[in-house]
Amino acid sequence: MDAIIWEGNRLRLLDQTKLPGTIEYIECNDYYTVAEAIKRLSVRGAPAIGAAAAYGLVVGAGQIQTEDPKVFLEKLESIAGELGATRPTAVNLRWALDRMMLRLSSAGEKSVQELRDILLEEAHAIYNEDVESNRRMGEYGQQLFPDEVRVLTHCNAGALATAGYGTALGVIRAAHERGKKVSVYADETRPLLQGARLTSWEMVQEGIPVTLITDNMAGYLMSQKMVDCVIVGADRITANGDVANKIGTYGVAVLAKYHQIPFYVAAPLSTIDMNLSSGEQIPIEERDAREVTHHAGQVVAPDGVKAWNPAFDVTPNGLVTAIITEKGVVQPPYTENLKKIFRDKKQEEV
Amino acid sequence: MDAIIWEGNRLRLLDQTKLPGTIEYIECNDYYTVAEAIKRLSVRGAPAIGAAAAYGLVVGAGQIQTEDPKVFLEKLESIAGELGATRPTAVNLRWALDRMMLRLSSAGEKSVQELRDILLEEAHAIYNEDVESNRRMGEYGQQLFPDEVRVLTHCNAGALATAGYGTALGVIRAAHERGKKVSVYADETRPLLQGARLTSWEMVQEGIPVTLITDNMAGYLMSQKMVDCVIVGADRITANGDVANKIGTYGVAVLAKYHQIPFYVAAPLSTIDMNLSSGEQIPIEERDAREVTHHAGQVVAPDGVKAWNPAFDVTPNGLVTAIITEKGVVQPPYTENLKKIFRDKKQEEV
Repeated sequence: MDAIIWEGNRLRLLDQTKLPGTIEYIECNDYYTVAEAIKRLSVRGAPAIGAAAAYGLVVGAGQIQTEDPKVFLEKLESIAGELGATRPTAVNLRWALDRMMLRLSSAGEKSVQELRDILLEEAHAIYNEDVESNRRMGEYGQQLFPDEVRVLTHCNAGALATAGYGTALGVIRAAHERGKKVSVYADETRPLLQGARLTSWEMVQEGIPVTLITDNMAGYLMSQKMVDCVIVGADRITANGDVANKIGTYGVAVLAKYHQIPFYVAAPLSTIDMNLSSGEQIPIEERDAREVTHHAGQVVAPDGVKAWNPAFDVTPNGLVTAIITEKGVVQPPYTENLKKIFRDKKQEEV
Repeated sequence: MDAIIWEGNRLRLLDQTKLPGTIEYIECNDYYTVAEAIKRLSVRGAPAIGAAAAYGLVVGAGQIQTEDPKVFLEKLESIAGELGATRPTAVNLRWALDRMMLRLSSAGEKSVQELRDILLEEAHAIYNEDVESNRRMGEYGQQLFPDEVRVLTHCNAGALATAGYGTALGVIRAAHERGKKVSVYADETRPLLQGARLTSWEMVQEGIPVTLITDNMAGYLMSQKMVDCVIVGADRITANGDVANKIGTYGVAVLAKYHQIPFYVAAPLSTIDMNLSSGEQIPIEERDAREVTHHAGQVVAPDGVKAWNPAFDVTPNGLVTAIITEKGVVQPPYTENLKKIFRDKKQEEV
């Protein structure tokens, strides 16, 4: 089940708001549809929205009616701005769009059609590299797991949150593929229940034993010694190793610390924002209070009650045991070791 | 809005599973209906199920067709057994039934009708004392609050969970009545959303500012310094001060400790089980997995996924700043100070 499909020059996005009950793809004939799909969380997960936005820019490029490369680039810049403004927290969105625009600006003199072709090529590269990154992350990460392990995860950092395979769930998949005996506890992850709807669904399909819990059971689960480690994805990691991820992640990290359980974060380098020095600088999206007061159109709270709905929180680096990337496992001190991993990557590319 | 009404010799229980959308009372013409209402959480909250069970025994007494006091007492004992088996964790249920039976056994020689009258009198006493206890608890507890305070609470320990006024929410009400500027954050409290459905409803009706959050937001809320203290009720407190309460309470207590925020428990002495030395001995009810796989009546998880559904957890005494009772605020060390409060109570009664 792919979250993002490019086929016959068309973009289709799996409408994840309808999972697991209904499998339905959104046909994206214009970039507004892509922007809307990102905003309403039909496509979600930091790496997935990066790839979706890249293809969204390709779709937008097809809508621009001009043969003048300069006009084309101007209009494309404005489309990239619109796509980039859909969600503020995950850095992969901006990262992917910047990479696409940078690719064009370094392409030299080209016709509009050539520029369109380059964009598509670059979107494919972003997509394919993400799958490849996840596989590598899985391989590095699974080495942290003992042969038999009970893992708690929060939200969905699976195939559906990426171009495929998953970050946190990719590590779990890799351990399972290596024959390790992995079982998973999935936080349901209110308000939008990505754990219940998506993670448990991915695990059931994969044949990996999964037990669903409500978010408020994680503490008791740990106190009963029913979990050996925690692994989550990330929406943005700052240069010092602070981690923005789905709301509730911070609480789980504090609980893991209290129970002396390792807390791992799995994320590609595209999620690491070396321009921000600490998590306090990450913009935290607040979403409609109705996500909290309602469920699937049904009201669960009385009229007139206010609700608070931050979509993410920030886990300070001190609570993070290790960050698993496609270039290896990064241990504290993060400021030093994240810098090093980017330096190594640059040297590889040269 | 009373959770329990005895009127015209009839017991009516508010069906709290339908709140806040629908206000509907269950007419309890037999004790099975009372038992069923307790099991399915139409009436819930430790003090409320104690009082409901006491009235349930009165209803059951009316069903016994005999004029022989010995036969009557035997049948009543069996009804008390059935009512007492409806839920295992809250000790008030057993406490109320034991108190009712003890009252009869110390009544001397009486006719069946006289025994029935004594039972009703005792049920009224349990009910009225609970309201009175809550008011006293409120008065003691509110002294712990500064003049301006932002309080986080979990589940519903309000008027609906008691004979009236509430334990944790009673303290909040008392502070509000004394003119303190109280605002409340209510954890929605999955799986059954007592925080969203009941606590926020009580607070809106009372005109106390309330903001609803999902359970997994509590940590981030604390990290943003948006909450000054936590107050919850209890289903059973052991002699050493360990506290069984709604699932998720333990996680909130760990978070409060981590953020150095006071964590208060408000409960009447009827919730304190001096027969158990520690929380490990408290039976923790596990409920139907469908409460987790479903949300507001709708399925949210894929077919075939397992779920874990403990209805309560245990917060060790070390995480509890103080226990607020109707006889005063109990500070650590609890083993010593709880013993003392029961000794003082006994001396008062003598």
